[in-house]
Amino acid sequence: MSRDPRLEAVNRILERLFPITRSLTGEGNRETLRTLQEIAPIEIKEYASGEQVYDWVIPDEWSIRDAWIKDGDGRKVVDFRVCNVHVMGYSTPVHETAMTFEALSPHLHHLASQPEAIPYRTSYYKRDWGFCISHRQYLEMKAHGGPYEVMIDSTLQPGSMTVGEVLIPGRSSKEILISTYFCHPSLANDNLSGTVTTAYLAAELAKGSWAHSYRMVFIPETIGAIAYLAHNEAAMKAIERGFVVTCTAGPGPLYMKQSLDPSDPINRVCHNVLKARDGEFKTYPFDIHGSDERQYSSQGFRINVATIGRDKYYEYPQYHTHLDHLGFISAASLLDSLGAYMEAIGQLDCDILFRNTQPHGEVMLSRHDMYPATGGAQLHGADKETMSDLDRILWLLFHCDGEVGLWDVAQRLETDVRDLYATALRLEEKGLLERVHP
Amino acid sequence: MSRDPRLEAVNRILERLFPITRSLTGEGNRETLRTLQEIAPIEIKEYASGEQVYDWVIPDEWSIRDAWIKDGDGRKVVDFRVCNVHVMGYSTPVHETAMTFEALSPHLHHLASQPEAIPYRTSYYKRDWGFCISHRQYLEMKAHGGPYEVMIDSTLQPGSMTVGEVLIPGRSSKEILISTYFCHPSLANDNLSGTVTTAYLAAELAKGSWAHSYRMVFIPETIGAIAYLAHNEAAMKAIERGFVVTCTAGPGPLYMKQSLDPSDPINRVCHNVLKARDGEFKTYPFDIHGSDERQYSSQGFRINVATIGRDKYYEYPQYHTHLDHLGFISAASLLDSLGAYMEAIGQLDCDILFRNTQPHGEVMLSRHDMYPATGGAQLHGADKETMSDLDRILWLLFHCDGEVGLWDVAQRLETDVRDLYATALRLEEKGLLERVHP
Amino acid sequence: MSRDPRLEAVNRILERLFPITRSLTGEGNRETLRTLQEIAPIEIKEYASGEQVYDWVIPDEWSIRDAWIKDGDGRKVVDFRVCNVHVMGYSTPVHETAMTFEALSPHLHHLASQPEAIPYRTSYYKRDWGFCISHRQYLEMKAHGGPYEVMIDSTLQPGSMTVGEVLIPGRSSKEILISTYFCHPSLANDNLSGTVTTAYLAAELAKGSWAHSYRMVFIPETIGAIAYLAHNEAAMKAIERGFVVTCTAGPGPLYMKQSLDPSDPINRVCHNVLKARDGEFKTYPFDIHGSDERQYSSQGFRINVATIGRDKYYEYPQYHTHLDHLGFISAASLLDSLGAYMEAIGQLDCDILFRNTQPHGEVMLSRHDMYPATGGAQLHGADKETMSDLDRILWLLFHCDGEVGLWDVAQRLETDVRDLYATALRLEEKGLLERVHP
Repeated sequence: MSRDPRLEAVNRILERLFPITRSLTGEGNRETLRTLQEIAPIEIKEYASGEQVYDWVIPDEWSIRDAWIKDGDGRKVVDFRVCNVHVMGYSTPVHETAMTFEALSPHLHHLASQPEAIPYRTSYYKRDWGFCISHRQYLEMKAHGGPYEVMIDSTLQPGSMTVGEVLIPGRSSKEILISTYFCHPSLANDNLSGTVTTAYLAAELAKGSWAHSYRMVFIPETIGAIAYLAHNEAAMKAIERGFVVTCTAGPGPLYMKQSLDPSDPINRVCHNVLKARDGEFKTYPFDIHGSDERQYSSQGFRINVATIGRDKYYEYPQYHTHLDHLGFISAASLLDSLGAYMEAIGQLDCDILFRNTQPHGEVMLSRHDMYPATGGAQLHGADKETMSDLDRILWLLFHCDGEVGLWDVAQRLETDVRDLYATALRLEEKGLLERVHP
Repeated sequence: MSRDPRLEAVNRILERLFPITRSLTGEGNRETLRTLQEIAPIEIKEYASGEQVYDWVIPDEWSIRDAWIKDGDGRKVVDFRVCNVHVMGYSTPVHETAMTFEALSPHLHHLASQPEAIPYRTSYYKRDWGFCISHRQYLEMKAHGGPYEVMIDSTLQPGSMTVGEVLIPGRSSKEILISTYFCHPSLANDNLSGTVTTAYLAAELAKGSWAHSYRMVFIPETIGAIAYLAHNEAAMKAIERGFVVTCTAGPGPLYMKQSLDPSDPINRVCHNVLKARDGEFKTYPFDIHGSDERQYSSQGFRINVATIGRDKYYEYPQYHTHLDHLGFISAASLLDSLGAYMEAIGQLDCDILFRNTQPHGEVMLSRHDMYPATGGAQLHGADKETMSDLDRILWLLFHCDGEVGLWDVAQRLETDVRDLYATALRLEEKGLLERVHP
Repeated sequence: MSRDPRLEAVNRILERLFPITRSLTGEGNRETLRTLQEIAPIEIKEYASGEQVYDWVIPDEWSIRDAWIKDGDGRKVVDFRVCNVHVMGYSTPVHETAMTFEALSPHLHHLASQPEAIPYRTSYYKRDWGFCISHRQYLEMKAHGGPYEVMIDSTLQPGSMTVGEVLIPGRSSKEILISTYFCHPSLANDNLSGTVTTAYLAAELAKGSWAHSYRMVFIPETIGAIAYLAHNEAAMKAIERGFVVTCTAGPGPLYMKQSLDPSDPINRVCHNVLKARDGEFKTYPFDIHGSDERQYSSQGFRINVATIGRDKYYEYPQYHTHLDHLGFISAASLLDSLGAYMEAIGQLDCDILFRNTQPHGEVMLSRHDMYPATGGAQLHGADKETMSDLDRILWLLFHCDGEVGLWDVAQRLETDVRDLYATALRLEEKGLLERVHP
C-alpha cells in the first residue's frame, strides 16, 4: 500500500488546530473555521447571543485569556497556558488571593479512577467557575492545604455563536446531512478528528457531481444543532438521512452507530461498507445518549443520522480527558475513516427513485438498442457479462415504479447499487426510466 | 407469608352465594347481585323478556321452586333440594305420576365417563324438561325400572333478565372492560369464583384513582353479554380491551387465555404478570369457543378480552358437574388470582398516549429542573439511579409522539411501564408531556 | 390405477398438432386453434399487422412454404420438410445458387455443446434469414466447403396475428387468468403440451359452475401477451392472479414457479396442491426471465401468475431444440399436470370474500337451525364430526368481515378451503354470510 499523499497535510492541519481553545462560542471557534476554509468552501455564520431557539437560548460569548492557581510561594500549581482543559468551560471570572483548600475544593474537578488524567468539564448554563485537574494534583493540593491564589481572566458577554455551513447542490434538491461538532478545546479524537474529517469530506464532495445535494454543518454540540435546526427548519424537516461525524481518528477499528430506524438504508449502507472493508466490526444501536443525532432525531425532524468512526465517545479511557491528545490519534486512521464515509456516500447517493415510463408490458429493448437481436437462444445465464447487464435492465424496469428506491431494488437483487445506478443512467438516457422527485 | 385478612370474608361470601339457584334469569340472580352489593357499588338493571337484542330475544323469566323423582315407594330418588344441579336449567313444569323408565329416560342426563358426577345441563331456547343425575343413579333407576312419579314445580313467564354494572370513572373516559357471568347454579369454580373475584376487583378499583375508566359487568353468559352490548353499543364499540373473569379459584396454577389479537398489549401485560409471579404458566390461544369473549370479540366490537384464571373451563374433570363445589376451590386461590388481575390492571392503566409538547430538538432539561447541572462528565451509566431516571426522561421525550402508547414505549425500552408512567407524570407536571385523547 | 380414458384422445391431438409450423403469425397458428376448437369453445381473434401495442408493433404475417440447402450435387443437406425447426423463424426469402461456406456460415445456427440437436431460433424484429442445423451437419458442411444453393420460400407481408380466447362466466365477474403460448413450431414440451393442457382446462371449466370467471388466452409469446393486454387493458388490470401454462408433459416430476409476490394465495395454493400430490417438489422463484408472466407482472398490471409444470423451459437439455419432440413427452404426464391445475383452480375458486351479515355478537345458531339444542354439554371436541362443522361455522362468522378472503381464513384455521367453502355456502343460504364483490 502506497503512502497516502494527504498524510502530511492532515498532520499539519491537526497540529495547527489542536492547541486552539474552542467552546460553544468564542474567537477560537472562528479561528478554527477560518483555518478549515483553506480545505473546504465553508460559509461562516453567526447567531446572536440571547436569541431563543426552541426551548433554548443562545448563550453569551465566552472569552478566556488566562487562568491559574498559585500556592503560597507564588508557584503556579495549575496553569491554563500549559493545558486549556484545566479551565472548566464557560467559567466566570474570579480572583481570590487567599483561598483555603476547603473553600477551593468544590471548584476542583478530578477523576479518582484515572489519577493522571485531567477531566474535561463545562458549565454552560449555570454560572460557575472551576478548574479541572488530575487526581494526583488534587491530592498534592489537599496535602498542601493552601491558602491558594486563584485567577480566571474570562469574559461572558453578549456576542454570537459561530457555525459553518457547506451546501453542495446536486442533480436533485433532496439533501443528505453531514454534521460535525467543534466545541471541544484541545481534545483530539473527540472531536478535532471529526471536524477535520468533515472538512475533507466537503472538499471531496465539492469536486464531484452528485445525484443528491449535501448539507454540511460545523456546529457546537447540542445548542449549535438546535440553533441550526431553528434557523433552517423547513430544509432540515425535508432531510431524511445523514451522518454525524465524530471520533474518526483513534487507534481502534471502524465501528458504526445506527440511526433511529434500524431498517433505514443509511444503516444498511454503513453495514455494507464496513463489512466490505473490515469483515467484522461493532455496531452500536441508536441511543438517546450520543451527539447531535439527539437533536436531528427528535420528533420534529426524525432524521436518520448514523455515525462511522473509531474509538467511540464514552468507550475509550482517554475520552473527555486531556489524554485524548494528538498522540492518541493518527492521520492514517482519519483518512481511512474518510474513505469509509466516501464509500457510504457513494452508495447512498445512488439511492434514487426512478419510474418506468412505459409500465404496460415489457419495453421492446431492441427498438431502444438494448437487447441482443436473435431470439430463441438460451440467453439466460449463457454469457455472464451480457446477461447480467440484461438482468439489471429487466429488473430495473420491473421494480422502478417511482415508489421503490434504487437501494431497495439493489437489496432485493443482492447486487451493488452503484452497478444498478450505472445501468439506470443508461435507461434514463433512452427515456425508459425517469427520476421521481417526491 | 402472613395470612390474608380477607380470607374469612371471602369464605363467608362464597358460602352464602354457593347454594343460590342461578340461571339466565330469576330471583336467584337478583339475590346474588344484592349480596355482592355489600362488597362493591353494583347497579342492578333489568332487561325485559321478549326484547329483541341483535339476533336474539331476551327469554322469559324462569322460576324453580322444587323438583323430584319418586319411586313406587314414594322415596325421592332425585331431589332438587339436595342439589340444584339435578334440574336441567329452564325446565318446563311437569307432573307425571307413573312414568316408565323408558318414557323417563330421554329426560335423564348423566355421564357414563364420570359415574359419580351430576352433569350441569340447560335448555334455554328449546322448551323441554329434564333431570341431571349421576351415572350410578341412572343405572339404579334403570335396574329398578319404575314406574316413577316426576315433578318439576317451575314457571316460565315474561319477566326480566338481571345484570349488574359498576362504572368507575378515571382521568380519561377511555374504558377498560371487566366482565363476568353469574348464570350458573351451585358450581363453584365456574363461575361463582369469577363473580366474587370481579366484585372484589370493583371494590379495589372504586378505592383508587385511575388513568382510565372501568366498565364492570355481571351478566348471564352469552344472552347477557349480547343484551348488554345491544344496550350499550356505542360505549362498547369504543372499548379496545378488557377481561372476562372466570374460573379463578381452582387448585391449579395461574393460566392466561389470549385475546383475539395475540399482539395486543393486554396479552403482553398478562404474560408479564404471570411470568413475574409464577415463571412458567400455560397460555391458551384465543378460541371461538369460550365465554363472553365470543360476543365482545365479534366483528361489531372486536374488543381484545383476555382471561387470567386457574383450572380453565373445559379443562378440569369437575367442570360442569356438581363436583365443582366449594371443596374444589379456595379463598386463597381466589385472592391470588385477584392479585394477578390487579397487577395486570395496574400495568394496563399506565398505557397512556402522551405527546412531547416541544418536538423540535431536545428540551433544555436544566431549565425545567430535570437535569444535572455540570456538563462534560460521563453521565451515561455513571450513577445508576440518577441515570436511569435521566434515561427514562430522554426516551419518553423521544418516543411519546401522541401515537405510540406508553406500554409500547416500555416494551421498546425493556422497562416496567409503571416506572415509566411515574416519570411521565413528572414530565406532565412540567408541561413537557401532555395526554392525547384519541 | 385405471387407465385414463382421455389418454388416446390426448395422444391423437398431440400427433395432429405437432407437425404444424407455428410462429408469431401465420396459417399454422390458425390451423392449431381451429383444431383445438374441437376440444374447447375457443374464439379466434385477429390483430392486424402494423398496429402499435404499447412499445411494440404487431409484425407482418410470415408464411413459409419451403426451405432447403443443396450441395453441389443437388442433394438437400438441410430440408425444412424434414424438420420445420431448420428454418429460423421469420426468415426473409432468399435464393442464392452458389454460396461459399464462408458466406453461408453467418446464417447457420448450431450448438457445439449438443452436436445432434437442431436449435430453435427466430429473428422476429430484425429482418434476416437463417438455417438451424445440428453441429454435426455444420461440421460436414464446413468440411465440404460448398458452394451451396440456398432457398427459403417465405413471405413477410401485412396480415394479422391470431389469438384464441375462452371466457367462462362465473358467479362473480372477478376473473382468474389462464394463459398459454402456441408460437413454437414442432416443439413438444415447450409448448405444444401447455397449449393442449389449456384447451383441456377450458373444456373442464366450461362444464362446471364457478364462483369466479375465467379468462383463458392462447397467444404467441411476448408480442401476443402485449397485444392482448393492450386490447383488454381494463379487464386485465382488474385481474389479480392466474396461471401461465407451459411445459406440462415432460418426463420429470411436477414443479411450480412462483408469481411476483411470494405470499400471494396462488403460490400457497400451488404449494399445497403439489405437496399433497408429490410430497417433495421444486419451487422456482419469480424471475424476470420466463414466459408471459413478464408481461402480466409488469407495473401496469402486476398480475400474480404462477406456473405448474414438469421439465421447465431452460432446464432440460432438449429445450429449444428439435429433440423436444413427441417422444420426450407423454399424454399421461400431460393429464397429471392437468389434474394438478384443476385442483389448484378448485381451491382458488373458493377464495371468496364473505361478510357476516350480523356482526354484533354471535348469531343465534339454533334459530337458524345450525346448532345442537341442549346447552351445557362439553361440546368442544366431544363429537369430532359435528364439532368441526360447528367450529367452521363459528370461525367463519368470526373472520368473514368482507376484507379477509376465504383462503386466508383457511390458512389461519389450518383447514381445507374447500371444506370451508362448503360450510360458507350453507351460511350463505341462511343469509348469515353474504358475498362481497370488491
